[in-house]
Amino acid sequence: MNAEIITIGDEILIGQITDTNSAFLGKQLNKIGIDVVQITSIKDEENIIIKALEDAETRADIIITTGGLGPTKDDLTKHTLCKYFNDELVMDQKTLEHIEMIFKKYINHPILEANRSQANLPSKCIALQNKYGTAPGMWFEKDEKVFVSLPGVPFEMKALVNNEMIPRLKDRFNRPFIVHKTVLTYGLGESAIADKIEEWENNLPDFIKLAYLPSLGRVRLRLTARGNDEDLLIKGVNESVKSLHDYIGDIIKGYEDENSIEEQIGSILTEKGLSLATAESFTGGKLASIFTSVPGASAYFKGSIVSYATSAKQEVLGVPEDLITQHSVVSEEVAKEMVTRVKNMFSTDIAISTTGNAGPTKGDSDAEIGTVFIGIAFKTKVMVEKFNFGNHRERVTQKAVNKSLEMIFDLLSKN
Amino acid sequence: MNAEIITIGDEILIGQITDTNSAFLGKQLNKIGIDVVQITSIKDEENIIIKALEDAETRADIIITTGGLGPTKDDLTKHTLCKYFNDELVMDQKTLEHIEMIFKKYINHPILEANRSQANLPSKCIALQNKYGTAPGMWFEKDEKVFVSLPGVPFEMKALVNNEMIPRLKDRFNRPFIVHKTVLTYGLGESAIADKIEEWENNLPDFIKLAYLPSLGRVRLRLTARGNDEDLLIKGVNESVKSLHDYIGDIIKGYEDENSIEEQIGSILTEKGLSLATAESFTGGKLASIFTSVPGASAYFKGSIVSYATSAKQEVLGVPEDLITQHSVVSEEVAKEMVTRVKNMFSTDIAISTTGNAGPTKGDSDAEIGTVFIGIAFKTKVMVEKFNFGNHRERVTQKAVNKSLEMIFDLLSKN
Repeated sequence: MNAEIITIGDEILIGQITDTNSAFLGKQLNKIGIDVVQITSIKDEENIIIKALEDAETRADIIITTGGLGPTKDDLTKHTLCKYFNDELVMDQKTLEHIEMIFKKYINHPILEANRSQANLPSKCIALQNKYGTAPGMWFEKDEKVFVSLPGVPFEMKALVNNEMIPRLKDRFNRPFIVHKTVLTYGLGESAIADKIEEWENNLPDFIKLAYLPSLGRVRLRLTARGNDEDLLIKGVNESVKSLHDYIGDIIKGYEDENSIEEQIGSILTEKGLSLATAESFTGGKLASIFTSVPGASAYFKGSIVSYATSAKQEVLGVPEDLITQHSVVSEEVAKEMVTRVKNMFSTDIAISTTGNAGPTKGDSDAEIGTVFIGIAFKTKVMVEKFNFGNHRERVTQKAVNKSLEMIFDLLSKN
Repeated sequence: MNAEIITIGDEILIGQITDTNSAFLGKQLNKIGIDVVQITSIKDEENIIIKALEDAETRADIIITTGGLGPTKDDLTKHTLCKYFNDELVMDQKTLEHIEMIFKKYINHPILEANRSQANLPSKCIALQNKYGTAPGMWFEKDEKVFVSLPGVPFEMKALVNNEMIPRLKDRFNRPFIVHKTVLTYGLGESAIADKIEEWENNLPDFIKLAYLPSLGRVRLRLTARGNDEDLLIKGVNESVKSLHDYIGDIIKGYEDENSIEEQIGSILTEKGLSLATAESFTGGKLASIFTSVPGASAYFKGSIVSYATSAKQEVLGVPEDLITQHSVVSEEVAKEMVTRVKNMFSTDIAISTTGNAGPTKGDSDAEIGTVFIGIAFKTKVMVEKFNFGNHRERVTQKAVNKSLEMIFDLLSKN
């Protein structure tokens, strides 16, 4: 059972927006055993959309389009779907009522003809009501294949997928099972890991596929099992992961399944009743932003001091000027002082601090570009680690964020 | 002159990572007049890669692949390219020396055979040296078409594109010009704008195409002109934008060309010698993170207090407990106090504060979900605006971030 995703609109092709919808769809479909075989981004032109639909039909059982459903002239997905299914638009009363309700409740200008016409839908489709917007989703069936058209606005699309599309796909198709387990490793490169686990990899059962996902400072190893007996798949994956520990147990720091590392940190903090704050220099609020992106973060995340400027480290965090003059802002001593002070300011159990030179220029410190100090305070203990994350601004920052998450995760696993 | 991008690897299809490479490539290619006609994400399997290359050849002059160049077993792009071009792998001495240098300089374990073999390249390709990694890019030519294979790691890919691929494409092809101009509007929906500018839109010259890009709280209008006379295109676009002011001048807040709104804010702050700080509650450091993502931000951005917990608003920012008890944390008074205090703490010219209920539950305030207060302090003035951004956590947060950027931008344009 497989699917293809077609995203419609020039804004993706010219790079004005990043396509985040496809990753969301890929994840949700996988969870219910539907394999995404291709994602295709195309222009908002009738003949191109039709060709893409025809091609997708040759590859997939389920074809999902996103985008091109707005009320304005550049959006023509709906008319093209009519042509493709040899259909015509008819007014859908329930959709019209929904659009009128959305306007009454959330939009501060009168409803227009263009909005009302969003209730004109192909007669052969089932309308999927959009909880957060005026463009409905559409569900078509043709020759045993299912076509779903979704709006492009991410949170509208997500609600339609979770509330309407996924339940309908579950009813409509018998699906195999897909089981993923992703092992988080830190500290060794992709090829060094491959070298150490060669024997293990060669002995993996046929129904399990392995992929290496290197990213800055960590390599994730993804095991994917496909088949009809879910228990067998889970058992096979768990046994393989267990035996992987005999080869690289020292660098395995955890697993990422449904949950990202920040979500796992959040669960542990909530469970243990511990609180967290950050003091960030060159990471500029990225750590705080990641922690607060997790729903329920208010249970443990108290806040952050982003002391981007050296003056802010002194005036807001209270790091003594002498200490900075003596050791420079990028130093073990400053990282230690930052983390101690932020922990006291927010009265938390745990705090983390970052200070470093991400480049491209050296700024207020003579430390080599790529030099990063990360400080962690836990109860009465404070520790600082020094790193060199290389010579590229984006890489240095992302590696520091990943390393900070790893260090917190590590600390929580051991305490 | 057009291009197709093929991204290779299951991690995109199963939604484990979001494809950000394609947006970057789309933007860079557009800048030099190359139109991206399709982006295709496929599995890491030989027959699928070959079929995708064949199909892309029917649509595009330039075919760019990303991903599948790592040293491990799941990466087979290189072998597949050999098959596609009827070629064989040979050791490239310059690439080998480069890999050995990268290992010596940045990687803390010995070089392995798997890494050395990354220097085995198809004999017909030109190797493009990867400044930040061990996987080289590859450039092929066949029947007047160009094929470029790039590694999937974003910062490695970006450097290869800027330093190697773009200069070579510029040399290789005569290209038309593509001129984009994007008008930023705030405060009206897509359909209301379409209604107001219908006459203007109907009178656009044939060589200019209009697209509506709605996102939370703002609609961007993108004008795209294509042709061989760049001066004429620029003139046409500028005249159309000028006449657009007669229709919706009141909601046009600026333009987005090369530069995002945060980059434009950064330029104005730098030019005027003004400094900025933020006090963030439910936005959790997202504003700080956006401001510090702009290179050169240290010239104006001093820092942020992320006071996520109510206790942090009192203990770290110093908002009086009485004020919170009397008005609740989500109130005009608290937003005003937050912004005044953070401005003093960081000694800046400008400060911005956010407090609100993003949901899904109400938290420490009884304010309705979606209620947001944004405070701005500029020199001796403080103003607070109240908003209701609806009923979806992600939407409320993103709308508040967008609105904050708009308010700062507006303030700077008027002062």
